[in-house]
Amino acid sequence: MINLCFGMQFQLPTVSERVLRGERNSLSKAITIVENEEPDYSSLMKEIYMHTGRAHIIGVTGPLGTGKSSLVDQLVKSYRLKEKKVAVLAVDPSSPVSGGAILGDRVRMLDHSLDPNVYIRSMASRGDEGGLSRASKDVVRTLDAAGFDIVFVETVGIGQTEVEIVDVADTIIVVLMPELGDEIQAAKAGLVEIGDIFAVNKCDLPGADKVLYNLGSVLSAKESGWQQRAIKVSARSSEGMNELVTAIEDHGEFLKKSGSSSAESSMKLQKELTKRISDLVISELTAVLPRDPEFATMLNRLLKKDIDPDAAAHQLAQKYILRKENR
Amino acid sequence: MINLCFGMQFQLPTVSERVLRGERNSLSKAITIVENEEPDYSSLMKEIYMHTGRAHIIGVTGPLGTGKSSLVDQLVKSYRLKEKKVAVLAVDPSSPVSGGAILGDRVRMLDHSLDPNVYIRSMASRGDEGGLSRASKDVVRTLDAAGFDIVFVETVGIGQTEVEIVDVADTIIVVLMPELGDEIQAAKAGLVEIGDIFAVNKCDLPGADKVLYNLGSVLSAKESGWQQRAIKVSARSSEGMNELVTAIEDHGEFLKKSGSSSAESSMKLQKELTKRISDLVISELTAVLPRDPEFATMLNRLLKKDIDPDAAAHQLAQKYILRKENR
Repeated sequence: MINLCFGMQFQLPTVSERVLRGERNSLSKAITIVENEEPDYSSLMKEIYMHTGRAHIIGVTGPLGTGKSSLVDQLVKSYRLKEKKVAVLAVDPSSPVSGGAILGDRVRMLDHSLDPNVYIRSMASRGDEGGLSRASKDVVRTLDAAGFDIVFVETVGIGQTEVEIVDVADTIIVVLMPELGDEIQAAKAGLVEIGDIFAVNKCDLPGADKVLYNLGSVLSAKESGWQQRAIKVSARSSEGMNELVTAIEDHGEFLKKSGSSSAESSMKLQKELTKRISDLVISELTAVLPRDPEFATMLNRLLKKDIDPDAAAHQLAQKYILRKENR
Repeated sequence: MINLCFGMQFQLPTVSERVLRGERNSLSKAITIVENEEPDYSSLMKEIYMHTGRAHIIGVTGPLGTGKSSLVDQLVKSYRLKEKKVAVLAVDPSSPVSGGAILGDRVRMLDHSLDPNVYIRSMASRGDEGGLSRASKDVVRTLDAAGFDIVFVETVGIGQTEVEIVDVADTIIVVLMPELGDEIQAAKAGLVEIGDIFAVNKCDLPGADKVLYNLGSVLSAKESGWQQRAIKVSARSSEGMNELVTAIEDHGEFLKKSGSSSAESSMKLQKELTKRISDLVISELTAVLPRDPEFATMLNRLLKKDIDPDAAAHQLAQKYILRKENR
């Protein structure tokens, strides 16, 4: 009011300015904007992007029930003792229909709820293909720009999410445990390839050494030259936590020294840009198709089994293929 | 040889002709052609598609470890007693990197291996988005055309696969069990919406009645009018199998009588056609993009943080947007 009386210009700071200052409420608001692609999304990313690239992004994945959340909880404690600012993003492969979340509805990590240097957020992937990927990348960027040193991204590792966490994180921790069933043990195959570090959690259960031994025979040096490591841990007793943190830090150092960090960034950005352009083209296509009378005609022919789906798609795609000058 | 001596024209039957006759070796070959989109794929689908629409397609899904395979095994037995020809397609959400399968590497259903009226096939989804959907639809069509009365499609239910099985199957069985962990119980949320019938397997374990009771409170009538059912079963002791088969048959009858079968077919085909056209457009786009110098320029700007990914994609998409006459 006083300002106005003196006729002074007074501009409120934008959400992104507040995020960059580390204001917590604005951070939550910004993440919601990013998650839902609200109208301010584009301007927010524009202002935030140049401030990214400082945080160490740590992906934590593995089968259901291996204790990922408890382990992340312990890791948060370890990094807080090192006075690092820590954020956790729990991404749920939730139902595409209801949006119901697997991890999100639990009351998490109450220990940290009063610590201003810990920020925890759940996010549903909503089942839209690539949605996990787009939104989680941008949320991680927002946390990075907000000044968090460490950002954990926690997902259930199965199928597509395995690929996506590789696109988001610098370091991947795969969490396993003894006594997993047949199917789940076999599911490790996909996880073994993406992991930088394997945490065999609940190591007080019988069979932990066997899991470690079996892992030992399949671990190898990744393309980057990084030698995969397996570590026995117990999120309950904190056993092995120091070793795990050391392994994470070693991998962070390795990325910097080997230069594979920047090579990977470039590859990831190329992939992301391609995906984003594809999404824009497809979103236009799906808006246009239902209004096309030829589409309706083709659908009728399909129902009468007068043409098969493959042939129908090829015929219609001719019309919708990209502009000639780009080919 | 004799035919040739007399100068007669002799044409070998095509793969699709052999499939339609129910020849087993040709069926396996045809499925491989479909799965890998080999050169003959388009002509095969063209010849087969008009012979589809007769089989009852039953999707079986649920969390890892609930005993889906054993239950399907029992269902195969039940339908064989009714003298139905039965096929099983096990679709694995395998690693996109290795193609390593969760379900596929087990020796399955040895009981049926000599029965010419049972056909069992495993298929890896290979992690390509929509790949499960496209290939499994076409493989199911191939089995349908080959004369199988019942086709089971078995997948692990988590995230995206939940949607995809709905697109493939007429009737969805969700397999649950007592004593699932916290996370897995919550994951049911997505499964509850898609299930027509819920089989609470391993019902000899403690807690089966509790699962049934909890299910009872969330089951409801689906949009089609079908009232969801929950049934206690034991694949081991065959308890509840007759009830389960009756429920499946009731649902099949319901689909026919209510006409929701043909309404759903139309919706599914519309979705499939849109997806196939999108895939064709995207496959052209991803071939063209890396050769575009503007793409390389944009990538450099991204690496220098001179532009953000969202803005970069919008700028480039302008160029690649569909032909004007279609807008």
